[in-house]
Amino acid sequence: MSSQPPRVLSTEDLNTADAKWIGLKKINWQDRKGKARIWEAAERRTRGNSGIDGDVTDQLAAVAILALIRSKTRAFPVSTVIIEQYRPPLGKVVVELPAGLIDDGETPEEAAIRELREETGYEAQGVLDSGSVLATDPGMTTANMKLVILDVPLDAEMVSPDQNLQDGEAIVRRVVEVKSLHGVLKEYYEKEDHVIIDTRLWHLAAGFDLAERLRRDAIAP
Amino acid sequence: MSSQPPRVLSTEDLNTADAKWIGLKKINWQDRKGKARIWEAAERRTRGNSGIDGDVTDQLAAVAILALIRSKTRAFPVSTVIIEQYRPPLGKVVVELPAGLIDDGETPEEAAIRELREETGYEAQGVLDSGSVLATDPGMTTANMKLVILDVPLDAEMVSPDQNLQDGEAIVRRVVEVKSLHGVLKEYYEKEDHVIIDTRLWHLAAGFDLAERLRRDAIAP
Repeated sequence: MSSQPPRVLSTEDLNTADAKWIGLKKINWQDRKGKARIWEAAERRTRGNSGIDGDVTDQLAAVAILALIRSKTRAFPVSTVIIEQYRPPLGKVVVELPAGLIDDGETPEEAAIRELREETGYEAQGVLDSGSVLATDPGMTTANMKLVILDVPLDAEMVSPDQNLQDGEAIVRRVVEVKSLHGVLKEYYEKEDHVIIDTRLWHLAAGFDLAERLRRDAIAP
Repeated sequence: MSSQPPRVLSTEDLNTADAKWIGLKKINWQDRKGKARIWEAAERRTRGNSGIDGDVTDQLAAVAILALIRSKTRAFPVSTVIIEQYRPPLGKVVVELPAGLIDDGETPEEAAIRELREETGYEAQGVLDSGSVLATDPGMTTANMKLVILDVPLDAEMVSPDQNLQDGEAIVRRVVEVKSLHGVLKEYYEKEDHVIIDTRLWHLAAGFDLAERLRRDAIAP
């Protein structure tokens, strides 16, 4: 099968009534002085049914996955897996954490284990942290998510299991030592013009780098 | 002036043609097998003019700010400032990094310094890192941003300068030791039901915590 870089052919305005996956909402709200105000937001039409009422944060839509791949015999340093995937909204390949939408009836943790298996082939043995419901882009959308940290213990050496991609999915996975993540992302943006980094992955790496610099007393110029 | 918690009164569907700040786009694209496909995305109608062509990542919309507040005499530990702000799309107070849209003609770094001053009162003396253009939520929107790390050196003790909020802005700032950030965010979601954490702030803190755990050899259960 011949392969070519994916690309955007054209874009056009889309009416909310004609959209299947997303929509626009006009939010009538009242500020702390009691003044009526308006906010415009975008929303996903697909949300899992894990919630119990209309509270937007009880209806969780998506998970991102930080997989900690480690060797029981310490044959390699603690590593993680990131993915490269073409994203039409940006018209670029995005470097990001494995992630996905939560299926009906799934818990966020089950969705995280499934998406990690599908997108990278790695099989998690446990959930290290599943944290809080997080606002994805709270000025612009109602979208929410969780960051689930998964434990991927391997018996000894690093392995490269087969991915389980769905038809049409083209996802490149890359295993990176956790300590090298910030440097690897810097290389992407310094060298790869057709690539853009997901902001959550970048903030994770920036936080890691900050801890290292604080420890080395290397914050100030 | 009396004060009351802000709240959402009602929401309604909004047509793209009637929206002022955001819109929906239908993206016609072609995958790596040459197959024509469709993607739906939301976009901001407001983008700065820092770009040179139609490439979406050349038209940067927003910045988030990690301010590193430090004492030249080491009178206090390196700290940062986070904000609490009611966000109608979530119907909750969101805990987040200071952030904002880039004004026409501004560089991302200028926008970061201005937004930090407005939202928190702190005056940055330099840019420590301004990194790459980042995809905010690449499966759903065209939104992009930068994380700008600013240097806020103080002569000695911590200070609490006045904020410079615009009319209608209600932003609570909170200064936190960098080392305590992850714990502070955990307290928010364990104790404060009306609060939700921004995903970028959480990933930053999770990355910091990961570095600390890796150093203590405390990754595995």
